[in-house]
Amino acid sequence: MKDTRMEAEKEGNENDISMVNNHESEVRSYCRRFPVVFTKAKGATIEDEKGREYIDFLAGAGALNYGHNNPAIKEKLLEYIESDKIVHSLDLVTEAKQAFIETFDSLILKPRGMRYKMQFTGPTGTNAVEAAMKIARNVTGRSTIISFTNGFHGVTLGSVAATGNSYFRDACGIQLHGTTFMPFDGYMGEEVDTTEYLDKVLTDRSSGLDQPAAVIVETIQGEGGINVATSEWLRSLERICRKHGILLIIDDIQVGCGRTGTFFSFEEAKISPDIIILSKSLSSYGIPFSMVLMKPGIDQWKPGEHNGTFRGNNLAFVTARAAIEEYWSDASFSRKVRMKGEFVREHFDKLVDLDDTGTLSARGRGMVQALDCRTGEIASMISHVAFEKGLIIETSGAEDQVLKFLAPLTISDHELDKGLSILEESIRDVMEKMRLKATRKMDSDIEVLA
Amino acid sequence: MKDTRMEAEKEGNENDISMVNNHESEVRSYCRRFPVVFTKAKGATIEDEKGREYIDFLAGAGALNYGHNNPAIKEKLLEYIESDKIVHSLDLVTEAKQAFIETFDSLILKPRGMRYKMQFTGPTGTNAVEAAMKIARNVTGRSTIISFTNGFHGVTLGSVAATGNSYFRDACGIQLHGTTFMPFDGYMGEEVDTTEYLDKVLTDRSSGLDQPAAVIVETIQGEGGINVATSEWLRSLERICRKHGILLIIDDIQVGCGRTGTFFSFEEAKISPDIIILSKSLSSYGIPFSMVLMKPGIDQWKPGEHNGTFRGNNLAFVTARAAIEEYWSDASFSRKVRMKGEFVREHFDKLVDLDDTGTLSARGRGMVQALDCRTGEIASMISHVAFEKGLIIETSGAEDQVLKFLAPLTISDHELDKGLSILEESIRDVMEKMRLKATRKMDSDIEVLA
Amino acid sequence: MKDTRMEAEKEGNENDISMVNNHESEVRSYCRRFPVVFTKAKGATIEDEKGREYIDFLAGAGALNYGHNNPAIKEKLLEYIESDKIVHSLDLVTEAKQAFIETFDSLILKPRGMRYKMQFTGPTGTNAVEAAMKIARNVTGRSTIISFTNGFHGVTLGSVAATGNSYFRDACGIQLHGTTFMPFDGYMGEEVDTTEYLDKVLTDRSSGLDQPAAVIVETIQGEGGINVATSEWLRSLERICRKHGILLIIDDIQVGCGRTGTFFSFEEAKISPDIIILSKSLSSYGIPFSMVLMKPGIDQWKPGEHNGTFRGNNLAFVTARAAIEEYWSDASFSRKVRMKGEFVREHFDKLVDLDDTGTLSARGRGMVQALDCRTGEIASMISHVAFEKGLIIETSGAEDQVLKFLAPLTISDHELDKGLSILEESIRDVMEKMRLKATRKMDSDIEVLA
Amino acid sequence: MKDTRMEAEKEGNENDISMVNNHESEVRSYCRRFPVVFTKAKGATIEDEKGREYIDFLAGAGALNYGHNNPAIKEKLLEYIESDKIVHSLDLVTEAKQAFIETFDSLILKPRGMRYKMQFTGPTGTNAVEAAMKIARNVTGRSTIISFTNGFHGVTLGSVAATGNSYFRDACGIQLHGTTFMPFDGYMGEEVDTTEYLDKVLTDRSSGLDQPAAVIVETIQGEGGINVATSEWLRSLERICRKHGILLIIDDIQVGCGRTGTFFSFEEAKISPDIIILSKSLSSYGIPFSMVLMKPGIDQWKPGEHNGTFRGNNLAFVTARAAIEEYWSDASFSRKVRMKGEFVREHFDKLVDLDDTGTLSARGRGMVQALDCRTGEIASMISHVAFEKGLIIETSGAEDQVLKFLAPLTISDHELDKGLSILEESIRDVMEKMRLKATRKMDSDIEVLA
Repeated sequence: MKDTRMEAEKEGNENDISMVNNHESEVRSYCRRFPVVFTKAKGATIEDEKGREYIDFLAGAGALNYGHNNPAIKEKLLEYIESDKIVHSLDLVTEAKQAFIETFDSLILKPRGMRYKMQFTGPTGTNAVEAAMKIARNVTGRSTIISFTNGFHGVTLGSVAATGNSYFRDACGIQLHGTTFMPFDGYMGEEVDTTEYLDKVLTDRSSGLDQPAAVIVETIQGEGGINVATSEWLRSLERICRKHGILLIIDDIQVGCGRTGTFFSFEEAKISPDIIILSKSLSSYGIPFSMVLMKPGIDQWKPGEHNGTFRGNNLAFVTARAAIEEYWSDASFSRKVRMKGEFVREHFDKLVDLDDTGTLSARGRGMVQALDCRTGEIASMISHVAFEKGLIIETSGAEDQVLKFLAPLTISDHELDKGLSILEESIRDVMEKMRLKATRKMDSDIEVLA
Repeated sequence: MKDTRMEAEKEGNENDISMVNNHESEVRSYCRRFPVVFTKAKGATIEDEKGREYIDFLAGAGALNYGHNNPAIKEKLLEYIESDKIVHSLDLVTEAKQAFIETFDSLILKPRGMRYKMQFTGPTGTNAVEAAMKIARNVTGRSTIISFTNGFHGVTLGSVAATGNSYFRDACGIQLHGTTFMPFDGYMGEEVDTTEYLDKVLTDRSSGLDQPAAVIVETIQGEGGINVATSEWLRSLERICRKHGILLIIDDIQVGCGRTGTFFSFEEAKISPDIIILSKSLSSYGIPFSMVLMKPGIDQWKPGEHNGTFRGNNLAFVTARAAIEEYWSDASFSRKVRMKGEFVREHFDKLVDLDDTGTLSARGRGMVQALDCRTGEIASMISHVAFEKGLIIETSGAEDQVLKFLAPLTISDHELDKGLSILEESIRDVMEKMRLKATRKMDSDIEVLA
Repeated sequence: MKDTRMEAEKEGNENDISMVNNHESEVRSYCRRFPVVFTKAKGATIEDEKGREYIDFLAGAGALNYGHNNPAIKEKLLEYIESDKIVHSLDLVTEAKQAFIETFDSLILKPRGMRYKMQFTGPTGTNAVEAAMKIARNVTGRSTIISFTNGFHGVTLGSVAATGNSYFRDACGIQLHGTTFMPFDGYMGEEVDTTEYLDKVLTDRSSGLDQPAAVIVETIQGEGGINVATSEWLRSLERICRKHGILLIIDDIQVGCGRTGTFFSFEEAKISPDIIILSKSLSSYGIPFSMVLMKPGIDQWKPGEHNGTFRGNNLAFVTARAAIEEYWSDASFSRKVRMKGEFVREHFDKLVDLDDTGTLSARGRGMVQALDCRTGEIASMISHVAFEKGLIIETSGAEDQVLKFLAPLTISDHELDKGLSILEESIRDVMEKMRLKATRKMDSDIEVLA
Repeated sequence: MKDTRMEAEKEGNENDISMVNNHESEVRSYCRRFPVVFTKAKGATIEDEKGREYIDFLAGAGALNYGHNNPAIKEKLLEYIESDKIVHSLDLVTEAKQAFIETFDSLILKPRGMRYKMQFTGPTGTNAVEAAMKIARNVTGRSTIISFTNGFHGVTLGSVAATGNSYFRDACGIQLHGTTFMPFDGYMGEEVDTTEYLDKVLTDRSSGLDQPAAVIVETIQGEGGINVATSEWLRSLERICRKHGILLIIDDIQVGCGRTGTFFSFEEAKISPDIIILSKSLSSYGIPFSMVLMKPGIDQWKPGEHNGTFRGNNLAFVTARAAIEEYWSDASFSRKVRMKGEFVREHFDKLVDLDDTGTLSARGRGMVQALDCRTGEIASMISHVAFEKGLIIETSGAEDQVLKFLAPLTISDHELDKGLSILEESIRDVMEKMRLKATRKMDSDIEVLA
């Protein structure tokens, strides 16, 4: 990899993204941090137009759990397109849909003792969240939905109301309604069980909290900075929901589909959500796809009440099914993910130990791991240096202070080692730079004093 | 076609959709009216699992202007996937995106003297509408958006507030905010120019209408029953928007991309919208894709303010570009669409003439044509009979009283003739049945009297 | 009066309101137009601290239908206070409340064949409007309330949402919800019956209008510029409300209590509102007081659901009852009001005739009459000159272009003549000034041309 | 007193409130608990139509701090009415208004080093709250207002959104907007400083809390059950408001005007609110009156933006001024109130000590004191028995579990002793009854066992 890089530099040919910059809206975002033209990808490796390769610890922000252009899945996709099977069908029944439903039921739901109806919404996560919020409100006849500090559920008007980040909220240019925020696990410090507070305001009819339809929660807040809810907290949350007749919605868009080692992220907590939202890696190939799972009693939709031109999406039915058959027919993939996750975590813990300034800390579960750098400045510098060295890693959290590890679950040992090495190098470089800067500042302070 | 049908019947093998019915949410809709398992499709013809063929006048509710699995486009799609080009990339720059932007600018925008920034939102129409409404509110600092009676703009919380149909509105379980409805062209009868009323309430500071950010309008209301706004009305609307400093948003999701004979549906009216929304047929292959076009001054987005995992969608970039190159490099396609549209309209006018009960009336523009049957009962019967005979045609309008012709623009003469013949037959059958029913009723009335 | 005025001027003692200007909020309003210190008042005459007298055609914006400090009422008020009867009682039962209820029922409701429950809300008009909107929403289970262009119903958050004027709406600093505006009688010109439009959007389930709880309307829009609804329009409105199961709320705060010649303003239209709102002149002495009348079936309040420290108000019970006994025991007062109203209207028509520029026009009903001056500038000048000459008359309407006659119904012939003379003089003065200005402008234009 | 009672009973003449029950709305509330016809009142004693006297510990829910029909104030009121001074004047300048402003400034504001503009809103507490919320939103350009659990600020649509009690919230039949609730002092237990939580969600830009315009808070929550905020908590709240640029609004409607021993309830905490709301006892005679005090920089109202027919209210200007002159010219009244408050508290503490079941607890500040009875059942029984014995005392709190002592500040020693004796007796009676009931239950349980 180093070689191609050097070669590219020799030729002096930089990636040119000016065409895009001139014509695409100012809203573009990732391309500002990683300003090259990407062309090809395979597994956890992605290539730019100059032939440089990058290890991908971003993985479509969690949409590529099975890696880029996974060959087993690709084969099924090509076959389907080649044979002129139905690509677009609204919500008509197609072979592809039937096969997906059958596979998802038999390999995912049934083995877990789960009985859920499947709703194929518009193929974006936010669309599925909107559908979930609607049906929760309709079934209960109440309008408030409880969300949590630092939660992220999308940016359309319904789901952004449940999203904590003011950057997205303020962009709406209109007041957001129908949600109330409660402190997430750990938000008020170790000693406070925030579900107790929730229980209190729900019990107290003078708390100002209107009786809610549902609680929507991520088991691990991805955009919020990899905040991990404990199993105890999730169980307590479920208990309170039952007690007050409130529906429990798990938004498993980012950390579902195997990210934590189990297919659903909440399996470890042994809870039984009323509604589950899946998207991102569900299609397995980066193809837009979303699904809402509801307990049968909640499926009180009238025909077409929630619709959308691309609901369903047959190419995604095909790839989603292929991935499930490939990876979820037995427990081996799940086991590998958990082991890989532990390996990453050990590495991160080592990095934390190496850092004698006490800046870094690690947290996460399975293959979603975070290196908290305390400030957005440091995290961004590390991400930037890493990119220069051939690694794509994103920052998250309210201050962008967290390096977020979301590599494909299928990443090869070689790619993983390479990525972690680059990360370690980058951290050392940045830390060294910070130390130098601090020393220089000290020197100049001394000079001034002298 | 008839033959396969007979064969299937001989074998007594009906399509079985019970698996889907048992596991998919009650929200499913089209599959209730057309309850078969579709497998393959090509152009304007679609096939079920028993090998029966159907002419497709529905065309993905306008998402398949270039027909099912268009071979020129398919080729490019397969090539892209095969060569492991980037499929999923968030809003990173990719080859596919660059190429699309270049093509769209040079073949669509430039030749029409249009300068717009392109925003790739989440790949659903409603997501693009939400983005358009956001930026309009943000740029103007106002929150109200004016929509029109019978308008349809999607079902997420922001866009459904601009959608007139109470079926979708009531499904939200929460009050909808930030929109005000005005009468569409013709709503108050021929003699009333509804833009005058709009101008009056905008001018009158005591009308109760808060100064709006924007007007959002379809030039032809698709879901609303093919209500066609005149060019004069659209120009008057544009004038009023300018006068009051209000942005004009054209939702061209259903009738853009060539449906009316020009790429944008508003070209005939010679107006210059501030914001244009495209989706459905933009990807050309039924792949989820959406775009917001904004005049450069309106593009005041901050990075990532509106985001989404599947924004962009490289497969769609590839197919969208292929379609534009194939069909919009010169004026010939446009000409053909207009001619085909006129042909359909003449046929519809003939059907209206044949109907001596005065029940039917026709309206439309280009290749979006409607046969208004006055009642949902009649329209549904015709749609049902047509399906039995091998034609898929949808109903729309507040009472589902309108048969909506939305065949692929690329439909072959043979397919079109076949489809129109089946439609004519079906109408005759239904009309005959209605006549018989009426006669029988009359007879029994006479008997009673006698 | 002239004499005292001259005397005051001789002494050079102007009214000093600087203390108030320095300490009272910038929100103060009437005192800017009439910047003197008022001290005493009797009937339709009011006096300032310099002893100057003014004829009062403002009458507390309709709160003083029985004149200032009406002696018959005053006597009862003094007697009550002197004997240490209960002044403040929340909603406990008091002698005064019992007596008022008895009197209102026997002299107002029963003779008109009306059966209504009485709710004593917080003693402001807007509080009564809020209560009416609440109970309408609660009884119907719907949230939208239809209001009309140029309607005014108060400025608290619920009622201001039903108020058309953007001056009040914008002052809220928050979006207003739960109301939709429809065109008032005559709003779309003579030829359009605006209730037809209302009926259409209510019937059309795709109009974007959510099924409303109620319609709230003034029979004559006071703040909106004395827009008089015809009896036919009101009856048509009532019919449409019945047809769609919508409650009809008449806001009779400003034009009820005899203002139009009958106790309720809608008696002439022979309609039967579901809810009636009274305030302003109900207490008869300028004492805060409000009441909501509901048909018994609508009175589904739970105890204390709508409360307020000053609900009821015993001093007002006493004065309100005194006024009803004094003026509404027989039909003579009603007759006199109608005659006086006709006299004023004839005078206004004469003024319109005198104006050869065609600027003025007159409208109104009973003792609420308007002289429309086309521009706020002219109306304000007339009001200003009139004040200088000893007459208080207010402007209203969206542009403040309307001189609003709201003198006490009990105004003496002498006071009325005096007021109308001053008004006539003032109009002549202003018209003369306008003519001079126009002539001068013409002269200078000619000079320029010469 | 006992004698009149016996006499009344002898005659067998009960109070008849059926006329009111038949004609007044079901919303009536206090008259259900105290179902007699009240006629006269003086100081802290109130009389019914049968001549029975009651000690009044309710005092108009805090509106009668100076007692019923206070003679010093009454004299000024009669004098004003008798001499035909202006009673109703909208917001014109009157002698009475000038005099009030002067007095309030010189006796209340100046001595406390306070500089505030005075806004005379519609004469209800809720109207003043609405005005305060409006101006806070307008000045800051933000829409959210933070309120606290168990807060009560009125029931019109703006203020009820800041009121915690679901009984009032649900009565609106519409979703409430623009407020967010935070835990009041002590809400999360002794060990949690709830202002820390507030600070955290304000600092965290991903907490879901939109940057608020203001915080509105009662120093002692009256309707919420006499929850007393500590001075430290209030100071911390003020500090956080300053830190985040949020306005601090003190709703001093119920516990201002001397109730706690100082004129404003927050004087002890030494905070400087941006906006202060007064009503209830401000007029001193039970006459409707309200005022918003704003720091001059906040007074950015445009003329008439917040209006109302009865804003101001001259009779209230007269009585309010009389009370201030009578009671607030020096510190003696304040001292007496504090002493009386301590006396009451000692008595309450004694009652708590007497109760060997541990049911009762006492809390409060100055002359607002609470006896918490744990359950609404016990508190109601005590209130009921007390009424039978000649004492009016209200319950409050989410479960009505709190007996609320709000006697006039001017209550005589004799009346206070009498009231406290009746209260003590009533508590003993109820406790005895409870004990008997428990014993009987125990006996029957034993029987069953035997």
